[in-house]
Amino acid sequence: MLNKNRRITFPVIVSAPSGTGKTSICRFCAKKLKGLKYSVSVTTRPKRKGEVNRRDYYFVTEDEFKLWIEQKKFIEWTSFHGFYYGTLKEKFESMLENGYDVVADLDINGGKNMMKRYPEGVFIYLLPPSMGELKRRLLKRGTDPLSVISQRLSKVFEEVRYAKGYTYIVVNKTFQTTVESIILIIEAERLKTSRFETYLNHLKEEEWRE
Amino acid sequence: MLNKNRRITFPVIVSAPSGTGKTSICRFCAKKLKGLKYSVSVTTRPKRKGEVNRRDYYFVTEDEFKLWIEQKKFIEWTSFHGFYYGTLKEKFESMLENGYDVVADLDINGGKNMMKRYPEGVFIYLLPPSMGELKRRLLKRGTDPLSVISQRLSKVFEEVRYAKGYTYIVVNKTFQTTVESIILIIEAERLKTSRFETYLNHLKEEEWRE
Repeated sequence: MLNKNRRITFPVIVSAPSGTGKTSICRFCAKKLKGLKYSVSVTTRPKRKGEVNRRDYYFVTEDEFKLWIEQKKFIEWTSFHGFYYGTLKEKFESMLENGYDVVADLDINGGKNMMKRYPEGVFIYLLPPSMGELKRRLLKRGTDPLSVISQRLSKVFEEVRYAKGYTYIVVNKTFQTTVESIILIIEAERLKTSRFETYLNHLKEEEWRE
Repeated sequence: MLNKNRRITFPVIVSAPSGTGKTSICRFCAKKLKGLKYSVSVTTRPKRKGEVNRRDYYFVTEDEFKLWIEQKKFIEWTSFHGFYYGTLKEKFESMLENGYDVVADLDINGGKNMMKRYPEGVFIYLLPPSMGELKRRLLKRGTDPLSVISQRLSKVFEEVRYAKGYTYIVVNKTFQTTVESIILIIEAERLKTSRFETYLNHLKEEEWRE
């Protein structure tokens, strides 16, 4: 969307296997990079230790979520391991219109939905350094029973194949390097000619003279 | 081209109106960024003060240049203000094959030729902050007679329109900021999924297990 700085703003969708810490990675990117806002998702899953309502997620009941689906309040929504996740249309679009790029962490399905809606968006997939490393991370977090972890791991390899549909791949070595890579990608994407198209089309020769 | 690091290397073409200092900008980028090499062009134009043969250009006679055209030694060549400029095929390709990304500063025609040959390449156009600023720079450099400067300026606005064919636009405010932006773009481009395609296609599940 074209804003007053005459640059077209864009969504940045970050996907990763569960247990990557993608929510805190994305929130931190928005804190560090000027002009970037974090899109807080709505979910029906229970709040985990350390999570804050409205900062990490909007925690709602299944009834509320279903009502909002009917009211078409979501740009995209999906269900995963029995819980619902969604992105609020009005909030998301108003950030773009107000001149911000918007980063959202979504699962593969959410990512795919956003690719259809925002083909000009930036899609980043965080790849775990290895399966063993991912397993260790999930166990260390200790929020999920072993059965869920094992179920998740078996889905990871399948997911890795999806990474090919994304524009960028970041190997998620450490929190710090991953944040740096995402910020780097967004800064480069801001320099893309396509983000200035309207501006260039309306460029008058006089603007170049002093 | 796929190298031993299993990443596909790519050419980075930087174009700009004359008088932008794009040669020293590109050379400096290659000095600063690991894995990036500068492609030295061949030219028939006279050596300017401070320029070094084989570092800035290969300075050759018109006869030599024409012979090399016949021998198909160039990936691309063009003539500009009565002089020839070209890129040596063998050198350029061997750098890519040996695992380096390669940055070259070329004029608009050279850029267009490279777009056809390397559609996966990265094309950056350096836009002057304003026409007045560009005029001041050309006058300050003092290497060209006023008639040439005026001829160049009249071509600049036309060139700006070509910028739209490039992938990225960098407003050339200072040497430092421009170098930083180009390096940023290359680092982000290295994370593109398409640069890993062969690697991802051959990914075996075992590689992810420890």
